[in-house]
Amino acid sequence: MSAPTTSQPSLLPAALLSQLEAIFADRLHLGQAIRAQHGASETHFDVVLPDAVVFPRSTEEVVAVVKACVAADVAVIPYGAGTSIEGNTTPTRGGVTIDLSEMNAILQVNAEDADVTVQAGVRREQLNEHLRDVGLFFPIDPGANATIGGMASTRASGTNAVRYGTMRDAVLSLRVVTPDGRDIRTARRARKSAAGYDLTRLMIGAEGTLGIITEITLRLHGIPEAIMSAVCSFDTLEGAVDTVVQSIQLGVPLARVEILDDMQMKASNAWSKLDYPEKTTLFFEFHGSERYVQEQVETVSAIAADNGGGEFKWSNLPEERARLWKARHEAYYAAVGLKKGAIGWATDVCVPISRLAECILETKKDLATASIPATILGHVGDGNFHVVFVLDPNKPEEAAEAEALNKVMVRRALDMDGTCTGEHGIGLGKQEWLVEELGDAVEMMRAIKRSLDPKNLFNPGKIFSL
Amino acid sequence: MSAPTTSQPSLLPAALLSQLEAIFADRLHLGQAIRAQHGASETHFDVVLPDAVVFPRSTEEVVAVVKACVAADVAVIPYGAGTSIEGNTTPTRGGVTIDLSEMNAILQVNAEDADVTVQAGVRREQLNEHLRDVGLFFPIDPGANATIGGMASTRASGTNAVRYGTMRDAVLSLRVVTPDGRDIRTARRARKSAAGYDLTRLMIGAEGTLGIITEITLRLHGIPEAIMSAVCSFDTLEGAVDTVVQSIQLGVPLARVEILDDMQMKASNAWSKLDYPEKTTLFFEFHGSERYVQEQVETVSAIAADNGGGEFKWSNLPEERARLWKARHEAYYAAVGLKKGAIGWATDVCVPISRLAECILETKKDLATASIPATILGHVGDGNFHVVFVLDPNKPEEAAEAEALNKVMVRRALDMDGTCTGEHGIGLGKQEWLVEELGDAVEMMRAIKRSLDPKNLFNPGKIFSL
Repeated sequence: MSAPTTSQPSLLPAALLSQLEAIFADRLHLGQAIRAQHGASETHFDVVLPDAVVFPRSTEEVVAVVKACVAADVAVIPYGAGTSIEGNTTPTRGGVTIDLSEMNAILQVNAEDADVTVQAGVRREQLNEHLRDVGLFFPIDPGANATIGGMASTRASGTNAVRYGTMRDAVLSLRVVTPDGRDIRTARRARKSAAGYDLTRLMIGAEGTLGIITEITLRLHGIPEAIMSAVCSFDTLEGAVDTVVQSIQLGVPLARVEILDDMQMKASNAWSKLDYPEKTTLFFEFHGSERYVQEQVETVSAIAADNGGGEFKWSNLPEERARLWKARHEAYYAAVGLKKGAIGWATDVCVPISRLAECILETKKDLATASIPATILGHVGDGNFHVVFVLDPNKPEEAAEAEALNKVMVRRALDMDGTCTGEHGIGLGKQEWLVEELGDAVEMMRAIKRSLDPKNLFNPGKIFSL
Repeated sequence: MSAPTTSQPSLLPAALLSQLEAIFADRLHLGQAIRAQHGASETHFDVVLPDAVVFPRSTEEVVAVVKACVAADVAVIPYGAGTSIEGNTTPTRGGVTIDLSEMNAILQVNAEDADVTVQAGVRREQLNEHLRDVGLFFPIDPGANATIGGMASTRASGTNAVRYGTMRDAVLSLRVVTPDGRDIRTARRARKSAAGYDLTRLMIGAEGTLGIITEITLRLHGIPEAIMSAVCSFDTLEGAVDTVVQSIQLGVPLARVEILDDMQMKASNAWSKLDYPEKTTLFFEFHGSERYVQEQVETVSAIAADNGGGEFKWSNLPEERARLWKARHEAYYAAVGLKKGAIGWATDVCVPISRLAECILETKKDLATASIPATILGHVGDGNFHVVFVLDPNKPEEAAEAEALNKVMVRRALDMDGTCTGEHGIGLGKQEWLVEELGDAVEMMRAIKRSLDPKNLFNPGKIFSL
């Protein structure tokens, strides 16, 4: 990640600037520092400054800034918590970053229907704290304390997806401001519908290129009567993956199951003060009634033992569970902490689970020959794993090496009928791979983009160039 | 349903006819009978004849007929089993009906990944028979023995959706022939992906207006170790609905839960030779391990008793279960059988489950004042229910009465933040309601349709007019 070396003046037309001032007053920001913050990414992408940052407090204000910018041919970039990792919010062509963090109201909890409507800037931890008293929770957990709007825009998933699905499954309806300045709702609050095109799913994962999500209605789940966590180390990667595959085949509804390789365990032991063996390890969570959770633990521990697993350390203590998942959430920072002053380059692929062990093993072989440290961790129940390359930001040759390793890994995943990104999105980083993966289907995406955003002003340059 | 009174000549241009003859030989049909069969519907819509019917055997043949028809400005209408019920396959503007029933190969079962790739004409019962030996099943069950392609195109769901989701959730990837004659694949075989726009979900429920689905990759599920069914009658509708709501709130993963009103029970007792009380009744199915299924039955039977339920008749006998679901699948025909020589008019809505009891009760009040018999049945766990109006086809005033009752019911569902169709689709029958439901969002659908099918030749006149 390289910082901009000179201060960049805002290039917005004067007429647009006065319009934005009229709408936002002191919530319009032109200063270098706040623009640099919104032009940065969590990972290795170069900083590019937006010309301005605005903080709307209502959908009506989003409509107003969209109409003003579109009339002036200026790009708009929606921004949540800035935790995406493929450069998804980098304002590559300048323009106005619309920071939705002040739209953070939880609008309506419908406990009997197990759904909630929130503004796009609500963060997932805030939502779960709010819901605890009604016995419900929102399961999607990408690790970072992301905004719900950002999670929808990148089709986020994470540790609970094996049981509860991804944002694709969690969203019932969206309120969206479109490039023509319309304020639409993509669906009603019913659990299912066969009414017309699935605009909800079209917007989820569109990374803000087709509209700006301002409100989201989410499906919730009851907090389970009982929760148990467990940790188990394996001598072989195949043993760990086979344990998961066989558990799923037997119908065990694993609530979470994460794989961490030996290098990640070393990093996490140091960073999160754990003392697990530095071997391939599975972190589990089980949800259900007391009896049923007990049955799940019995079943899975027997399967793990059959597959060369070590001690199956299960626990029903909330503090033990919290410690485990805190470590999992810190895994990225733990990896980056392997080298002082380093930055991380995170990538992910997802393959059919029958190919997962082979895909990870071949990737590990490549990483073993590399000069840079790298860890592997992933959502093994989905066939999805991440590599974190740990880079010296002052050595461009390390970034080049990471890029080469990434290329080999993505190519391998595609050859296994997998995808170039399970949950990070395309952003800036995976555009050539999207075309490799889907070929002519990308032309259909481009046609949709052109029809809905003919001036190419909504987060331009992301997913594909036009 | 009115039959065409005069024979209709095929209006295809001669050049196109010769092209189709060259491609399809004796699989091109121009006869009145086969065209009438493909112009009919399961319900009350008028018969409209296509100009020709072709039976492709490969995606390449679908590409060929699409290219020929688009070049000649002739409409194409994809056709599966013809079991849809909102006029979704009626060739309102003539053209060529593409009957996919000869594309009925099961191409690849990946047992370890629990997925399968099939051609669009495979029927769901055929698929489940094929899968039984590998211990897997495809759960989506709309009742009719529909094709997988048709189920995808109408976003079908049915009795298992409360546990296993709808076609939206079941499909991993589609092969689609687009209006510009491209043969695309919308996704790879990975369980999840964040790679670009969700074209898979855009095609699901598009009713063939954006492309013709020729192959589908589906998620499967392991056949559960144990299955139990149960039947329970209630004195009040609220008691039945509350039983379901409370069971779901307690985390019981109901595999199926169907509600049948007193009128439907009367019809089903007669048609399917059952002897249940003619009261509001729930049909249940439970999946899991032996122990867990037992636990679910205990929990739900206790909740039912608290809500005024009668005897909770559970069974683990496969023949008992088969009898129950056969009766449920025959429910539409049972309803139509209430009156000799009658035809059915089926409609459905879906509302937030907190409003379901109220929505059904008010609907029942309306039906009680009607001159035509009507039954209510539905997927109570999703908030989705159907009304079957039983009509004398020679009395247009009965169709008018059904239409008026339908109008009141759909309006009520929309007022409750529900949808005008939970699983039947828009087709011809719900177009005005789609606009009521989603307003300006329909303009976004139209823009997508125009960009992908600029000549409006793919199943034209369905979902909306352009």
